[in-house]
Amino acid sequence: MVATYRLSRVDLDAATETAIAIAREQTLEVPPGVAEPDMEAALLGRVEEVVRAHEDAFDATISYTLAVTGTDLLQLINVAYGNVSLMNGVRLVDLVLPAPALDALPGPKFGIDGLREMTGVAPGRPLLSVAIKPVGRSATELAALAATFARGGAHVVKDDHGLVDQPSAPFRERVRAVAQAVAESNAATGGRCAYFPNVTGPVDTLDERLDYSIAAGSTGVTVCPSLMGLDVMRAIAGGPHRLAILAHPTHGQAAPDRHEGIAPEVLYGTLYRVAGADAVVYVNAGGRFSWPVETCEAISHRLRTPLGRHRAAMPVPAGGVEAAEGARWLARYGPDTMLLIGGSLLRQPDLLGATRRLAEAVGEACASGARA
Amino acid sequence: MVATYRLSRVDLDAATETAIAIAREQTLEVPPGVAEPDMEAALLGRVEEVVRAHEDAFDATISYTLAVTGTDLLQLINVAYGNVSLMNGVRLVDLVLPAPALDALPGPKFGIDGLREMTGVAPGRPLLSVAIKPVGRSATELAALAATFARGGAHVVKDDHGLVDQPSAPFRERVRAVAQAVAESNAATGGRCAYFPNVTGPVDTLDERLDYSIAAGSTGVTVCPSLMGLDVMRAIAGGPHRLAILAHPTHGQAAPDRHEGIAPEVLYGTLYRVAGADAVVYVNAGGRFSWPVETCEAISHRLRTPLGRHRAAMPVPAGGVEAAEGARWLARYGPDTMLLIGGSLLRQPDLLGATRRLAEAVGEACASGARA
Repeated sequence: MVATYRLSRVDLDAATETAIAIAREQTLEVPPGVAEPDMEAALLGRVEEVVRAHEDAFDATISYTLAVTGTDLLQLINVAYGNVSLMNGVRLVDLVLPAPALDALPGPKFGIDGLREMTGVAPGRPLLSVAIKPVGRSATELAALAATFARGGAHVVKDDHGLVDQPSAPFRERVRAVAQAVAESNAATGGRCAYFPNVTGPVDTLDERLDYSIAAGSTGVTVCPSLMGLDVMRAIAGGPHRLAILAHPTHGQAAPDRHEGIAPEVLYGTLYRVAGADAVVYVNAGGRFSWPVETCEAISHRLRTPLGRHRAAMPVPAGGVEAAEGARWLARYGPDTMLLIGGSLLRQPDLLGATRRLAEAVGEACASGARA
Repeated sequence: MVATYRLSRVDLDAATETAIAIAREQTLEVPPGVAEPDMEAALLGRVEEVVRAHEDAFDATISYTLAVTGTDLLQLINVAYGNVSLMNGVRLVDLVLPAPALDALPGPKFGIDGLREMTGVAPGRPLLSVAIKPVGRSATELAALAATFARGGAHVVKDDHGLVDQPSAPFRERVRAVAQAVAESNAATGGRCAYFPNVTGPVDTLDERLDYSIAAGSTGVTVCPSLMGLDVMRAIAGGPHRLAILAHPTHGQAAPDRHEGIAPEVLYGTLYRVAGADAVVYVNAGGRFSWPVETCEAISHRLRTPLGRHRAAMPVPAGGVEAAEGARWLARYGPDTMLLIGGSLLRQPDLLGATRRLAEAVGEACASGARA
């Protein structure tokens, strides 16, 4: 495994010293002299290079041997960004997983092609997903919203990530009602809208929620990996449930322009994908969060680029995207994108009409093949 | 639930605007006008106050209703620091959990008193734990280290958090060998040293590792909650396995003096405790990580202070504590502390003698009752 760390507010000497400290901290974690020289040579992280990134920042690239990382997701993350996540001025900006780890990790079970097959959206056309919310609505009200979205042409209806098991719409009641509403809409329109309930919640009852989602007719689920734990998503993807995974970025603690943390493209573009996300929601530029479009493009690129044996995953820009602006973003990101619209659609007085217009605009967003 | 966010690099107007945005983002997450006024009144986060913290930083206190948060750990975290974890300049600096959540969460099963009973260390005397490492050592070599530590008077022997299931010392082989070595040492000395294997690893095989640890004779385990997921630790603590939990801070992405993330005392002092940690490792001042002692004291305080029905948890300063300095730190932190020593002890040529001297110094560290 090769990890690159951006070390901030340092000069070259300090950066080199920090890189050497990281290579030890993340592997042997004992002072020099404790381990025999051959163990040090074999197992210590190796500082490959330290190069200037900005005026007072350097990128240190460190390689780690498989004998330390193994191929389990959590140990890979532990070595890449474990104890050093507690140091200020150390940010994980790139991560290249070794072939055995790529082979061992599940990656997307469906991916872009599988989601297209599931929803019946031909290649060359983007997908439209919508969130049902807010918390406080009853299962019946949420089901009515879902029915309208499905009739209007949405390809995926997802629970808001804040809908869990509140008394206003308990998990089972909600999933049953919404799945039925979507199925009825599909029967009426001949469409194949999918419903992805949010299964985030206590890990020891997760299997029950997955079973229930399948029994209700869902072909996918919404998961919050940074809340549940990335390995919980890995276990879903690698397990027996045949469910697509739409990963939500909440609690990811990742954002552009920080001196610490995991760069969003590494977390959402690489780690979420290898851990099994078929589609990854990220906060789009121009929305409620001020992320630059370059970050969004970097996430999308990593989700789709060849990566071992893994399927490409679907980028899902979201987070305050105005319905009216959706087509423009899709033209920029390309057809292998699923737009996620929530609040800005719910604000429309004629929800069915607005969904229809949006679905039409999404369908035609990349028709010319041109990107803005 | 009441959360306090430190908003950095803003003036009062911008801070107030951000606080209002957070209160909406973390609850209804729809623009004004979508939800009915009575839903907004009932469910929207409420900005209680915005007060100046520093010259260009304000603390915004927001209260959230139980109807939104529920009492499940992940939804509490999702509301406290979900989507806003993706915004720059927003840091979670305090969190007060509502009584129903405190009642629902497991908290420590053993706590300070239970760990004393387990290891036979009388009140008024600190505990000594040691880490066996590094990765690369065989199970036999690690067992020999553990035997020496147990004979030398350590109260808890823990696996390094980097020891998982590597071929050099696979989990079962290691746990069997180390547990046996510690048991034999105890039989020889009459002591009650406990061995806490590191069970961090794939979540879908966690139960097997817990079962195996108990079968091998362990009365506790080492868990990395920020890697596994905090709710995975909650499930262990709330589940049937009678095992103390020593929580390791790796991948916590928490540190003092950042504009984002969760303040270490909130993550390690409050969240880890309510999620079931009996003892919490944190990086001590003066070690390899440059955390101020005030942060360490704040974590210790939160672990021990009255909190609903929950037992006090044991603070475990670590991370490059020099063996020779241990007693001084314990005198400062007080007797309800477990010192964790790793590398600086392993460096000693006479390991048994060094462990004995350290155990003696730890035992007497708070004898005078005075704090440095």
